[in-house]
Amino acid sequence: MRRIKCTLAYDGSGFFGFQIQPDKRTVAGELEKSLQKMHKGQTIRIHGSGRTDTGVHAKGQVIHFDSPLQLPAENWKKALNALLPEDIYITKVENVTDAFHARFDAIAKEYHYFVRTAPEWDVFSRNYTYHFPHALDVDKIKEACTYFEGTHDFTTFSSVKTSVKGNKVRTLYTVTCETKESGLRFIFHGDGFLYNMVRIITGFLLDVGQGKWEPEEIPGLIAAKDRSKIGKTIGPEGLYLMRVIYE
Amino acid sequence: MRRIKCTLAYDGSGFFGFQIQPDKRTVAGELEKSLQKMHKGQTIRIHGSGRTDTGVHAKGQVIHFDSPLQLPAENWKKALNALLPEDIYITKVENVTDAFHARFDAIAKEYHYFVRTAPEWDVFSRNYTYHFPHALDVDKIKEACTYFEGTHDFTTFSSVKTSVKGNKVRTLYTVTCETKESGLRFIFHGDGFLYNMVRIITGFLLDVGQGKWEPEEIPGLIAAKDRSKIGKTIGPEGLYLMRVIYE
Repeated sequence: MRRIKCTLAYDGSGFFGFQIQPDKRTVAGELEKSLQKMHKGQTIRIHGSGRTDTGVHAKGQVIHFDSPLQLPAENWKKALNALLPEDIYITKVENVTDAFHARFDAIAKEYHYFVRTAPEWDVFSRNYTYHFPHALDVDKIKEACTYFEGTHDFTTFSSVKTSVKGNKVRTLYTVTCETKESGLRFIFHGDGFLYNMVRIITGFLLDVGQGKWEPEEIPGLIAAKDRSKIGKTIGPEGLYLMRVIYE
Repeated sequence: MRRIKCTLAYDGSGFFGFQIQPDKRTVAGELEKSLQKMHKGQTIRIHGSGRTDTGVHAKGQVIHFDSPLQLPAENWKKALNALLPEDIYITKVENVTDAFHARFDAIAKEYHYFVRTAPEWDVFSRNYTYHFPHALDVDKIKEACTYFEGTHDFTTFSSVKTSVKGNKVRTLYTVTCETKESGLRFIFHGDGFLYNMVRIITGFLLDVGQGKWEPEEIPGLIAAKDRSKIGKTIGPEGLYLMRVIYE
């Protein structure tokens, strides 16, 4: 058996998330279906770096699997892309040792969240950016971003429905907000992310931009460890898993 | 009754084209459904500037309809957009006289066709640009564009399945090709377009870019009035109805 590492992109709008679910179209389900075709009906289990929710996109998700087939990396890429549906695309294939694990070896991840602030609805970006047509104080948002950087217990800024028991301490290396032509791009780079964490923090940052919170209130909110203190989780359409970083 | 003119955008990827068809999701069908809700079940017929095919997009389609309701234009826009599905959006509403007709009064139209020439597949643009990952001689394409400008019989460059009987003479005021970051944008501005005409001409221009035809051969191909002389119709995903022009 040889271990294969794949980097992939997918348009999350047509999937019930990454993880396999019976009778639902999922990214992992489609990947395993295509691998099964390549292996004459044999089931090949894939392991992702982590899940993404319904509607969340990826430009740099990473998976691994084991296969008895011996193919050069470029042939794996061509063969898999020929079998996969058009909303999943393998961008890179690498032969790795048995020691590699897509989830356990990931040391950091990068997520982007796109917000469109233009007043009118845009039918073409509705599945790809979050529409928030409101005036925002971007300087205040940028100041607020810095309060999230560092090592914190993110209980207040993650879903209570999390599957993670216990430790909710994570380190965000950088949290930045860039002004784009049609809105804002938020960039999160950290060692790990709790359930809905990027969507909850970004939603909160938009509230800061509207003057509902002051940046200085963030340390107190983090210390409170109480999800109910802040606003709702914003939509999945603006969220992209951009990169999974390994040693 | 008051006549209302609407300008609208739609993402064609979720529709079986513009025109109403039984048991199919169409743009006109969704528009009439929303109008029916606004008129307590009464059927309101809409008239478009022309049809668009399955998968073809619009940023500036125009329709008109007659209504007994008296609403300011801005209220029409809000009410209709609230009822319409998220892949159709009314950008402008105008009160017009009974003399206005969306189809018969249109004196010109502008279509854009986007071609992505980057080598790798992009899951996010698959429904919005045509992927043609081949080396192209853009100067030759630009030269070829000029041969289509002017008044010609476009039989060679339109579908044999056209519903138009007789006259296939149309005037293209300008045909241009712009180089974009990830590919090419073709812009067609003319007094009228035959069935599949933009998709057939653009496909032919890509063949010119690959050296399959020389620009100088175009007058002979137009004179031949024979669709079978040239290549296939390319996909609908790159095509946008941008503007309908009235007096």
